Amino acid sequence: MPADALSSALLPAGLHDVLPSEAAHEAAAVERLLAEFAAQGYRRVDPPLVEFEENLLSGPGAAMSKQTFRLMDPHSQRMMAVRADITPQIARIATTRLKNEARPLRLCYAGQVLRVKGSQLRPERQFTQVGVELLGALAAEADAEVVLLAVQALTAIGVPHLSVDLCVPTMVSRICAGLGLGEDDIRRLRAALDRKDAAAVAAVGGPAAALLESLMSASGPADRAMQALAALPLPEGAEKDRRRLTDTLALLRAAMPGLTVTIDLVEHRGFEYQTGLSFTLFSRGAGELGQGGRYRAGAQGEERGEPATGFTLYMDTLLRAVPPSPAAGRVYVPHGTSWESARKLRADGWVTVAGLAPVADAAAEARRLQCGHWLDWPAGGDVKPVG
Amino acid sequence: MPADALSSALLPAGLHDVLPSEAAHEAAAVERLLAEFAAQGYRRVDPPLVEFEENLLSGPGAAMSKQTFRLMDPHSQRMMAVRADITPQIARIATTRLKNEARPLRLCYAGQVLRVKGSQLRPERQFTQVGVELLGALAAEADAEVVLLAVQALTAIGVPHLSVDLCVPTMVSRICAGLGLGEDDIRRLRAALDRKDAAAVAAVGGPAAALLESLMSASGPADRAMQALAALPLPEGAEKDRRRLTDTLALLRAAMPGLTVTIDLVEHRGFEYQTGLSFTLFSRGAGELGQGGRYRAGAQGEERGEPATGFTLYMDTLLRAVPPSPAAGRVYVPHGTSWESARKLRADGWVTVAGLAPVADAAAEARRLQCGHWLDWPAGGDVKPVG
Repeated sequence: MPADALSSALLPAGLHDVLPSEAAHEAAAVERLLAEFAAQGYRRVDPPLVEFEENLLSGPGAAMSKQTFRLMDPHSQRMMAVRADITPQIARIATTRLKNEARPLRLCYAGQVLRVKGSQLRPERQFTQVGVELLGALAAEADAEVVLLAVQALTAIGVPHLSVDLCVPTMVSRICAGLGLGEDDIRRLRAALDRKDAAAVAAVGGPAAALLESLMSASGPADRAMQALAALPLPEGAEKDRRRLTDTLALLRAAMPGLTVTIDLVEHRGFEYQTGLSFTLFSRGAGELGQGGRYRAGAQGEERGEPATGFTLYMDTLLRAVPPSPAAGRVYVPHGTSWESARKLRADGWVTVAGLAPVADAAAEARRLQCGHWLDWPAGGDVKPVG
Repeated sequence: MPADALSSALLPAGLHDVLPSEAAHEAAAVERLLAEFAAQGYRRVDPPLVEFEENLLSGPGAAMSKQTFRLMDPHSQRMMAVRADITPQIARIATTRLKNEARPLRLCYAGQVLRVKGSQLRPERQFTQVGVELLGALAAEADAEVVLLAVQALTAIGVPHLSVDLCVPTMVSRICAGLGLGEDDIRRLRAALDRKDAAAVAAVGGPAAALLESLMSASGPADRAMQALAALPLPEGAEKDRRRLTDTLALLRAAMPGLTVTIDLVEHRGFEYQTGLSFTLFSRGAGELGQGGRYRAGAQGEERGEPATGFTLYMDTLLRAVPPSPAAGRVYVPHGTSWESARKLRADGWVTVAGLAPVADAAAEARRLQCGHWLDWPAGGDVKPVG
């Protein structure tokens, strides 16, 4: 077994050591994302890694139950769970500790989550989750704000070829219910739509078949999709979903005319817990960078709890899309260099790497320690390239 | 039960939600500490939260066994452990994944650790651990570098009244062994010294009693302690510990003449796994901020493994000693303000808080949302204080 495979085998599958350059890259990206969130009034909260199982896995957290590790708490003799998703924790904080704060409440977070199993797409069992939640606002302005914030933050860290795919995962159900379809038929239709299987939609769709096929084929670039959607005769219940899409798109266009927006009119998979306008963030070539959308905080089900929206970014995909920023230059400062001289170099933006013992050839020692420069001390006191 | 106590009861004892202002304070402090470490060539690594129990709790990690939560890994069917200390993970990375990197190897880290029980002094069961490790260097220059780096980083984040207490936890054992005392006597002496119990030291000390009493009473301000130590007739084995103290102190004095340094010549408690020069960082009034010292990485016992030194900072105590930096001004931008206008305000350093719907009194709305200012838009487009 090669050395690296041997070392990796020290760790359980799906868990890994983030080594120097990658760790700095991730830390810098997370820092910048949170700075962008903070600049729009989102305040950071840090919930704990572990909570009582019954709290962490109630309401919206229930979805992650099978993905969650449990621990016995010897103090309380109760079961605790290691978080597999931070979003339910933020909703809990908003609706308990911060329930008396003025609304809309803007919160952001970054932290580690742990999952029992990796997926085929995302084999890691531990990753960094970064996101925001905007609570207590029903307006389309709130939907637009979180989309724009995600785009702004991703652009700030250098994600290229960004696009946003909007959807309203409740719309298909509302259309089907409005046309009198039963729950079983709706479930079958959803499965067919998830597969983009037009033949099955036609076979199962009954009175909704024609409309759903139109929605399916109209999905794509936002303006074309909205034009097609505007012309369709929607049942009453789906009208507010259409209006929300229209309003949100108009707000996005006004703020960022150049943004690439697509609309999937039949999307549902991955948005099972969303209750309104939702979205996926893409970078061409790198794939999905994150997703978000409307939900109800503090209670399960659409009509209870506090209106909320937000998004989560996937740091693993995201970092593959972002070029690392150039590292500061490393300068070797030979043994005996004064603290003050090294301090001045750092103040000028250098990373100083101190020699802990005298060496015959400082330039060679600098090279050995991966420094591009060395301080010619005590001779001239100049910084020289290792050559 | 008051609302806050009720909310807190949602979480297991010793675990808590870090709320907005505190979370930003901690994040800013951690960021700055890591930037100071990076500026001296320490590169960040991020080991996982969870490892196989047998790896995490071997060698130096064994000390934390009782403080460590276990999890069954359904994938490998082996027991995993949630880290209670990051230091052994860094030593593992250095001696496996990074074993071919040039020495000295400088690494730093920041992350969460979880413990089964809080202590009386530190009731939290989860906290942020931040630190550095310097591997592969035996010289006193390495000892001085990590002390100076800790002082530099703590000063950078605004810790006031900083002092460093040096010790060499191996010295007492070497003195006693050199004077022919057995292991049982040495253990009894250690307990007496930990209690600073001069009478017991006299009673148990035998041939070492006089010397140990001198060491005990000489502990205190560094220069006085070193003067007293220099005059004492030490057995051969303890000579190198005395020399290391002398050399390190000289290097500290040369770099930072104003630094408050004390020396405890009989310190041992809390340094059971240290193998040479060690130190504790204090801020007057706030208490212990962190500690560090020499150890052997990659194997248990003094004479095997790679020489290493480093330190760990306790973010909880540390944050109590540091004033939070003033937050950026929050400005309310009324509904309808253009994205570009808000962007310009952010570029000027403002935090913008967007109105999601029209309001009659923008100044009042700004106050309600904890903004000190509001944008008078579309009227004059000026930023005005809420008054």
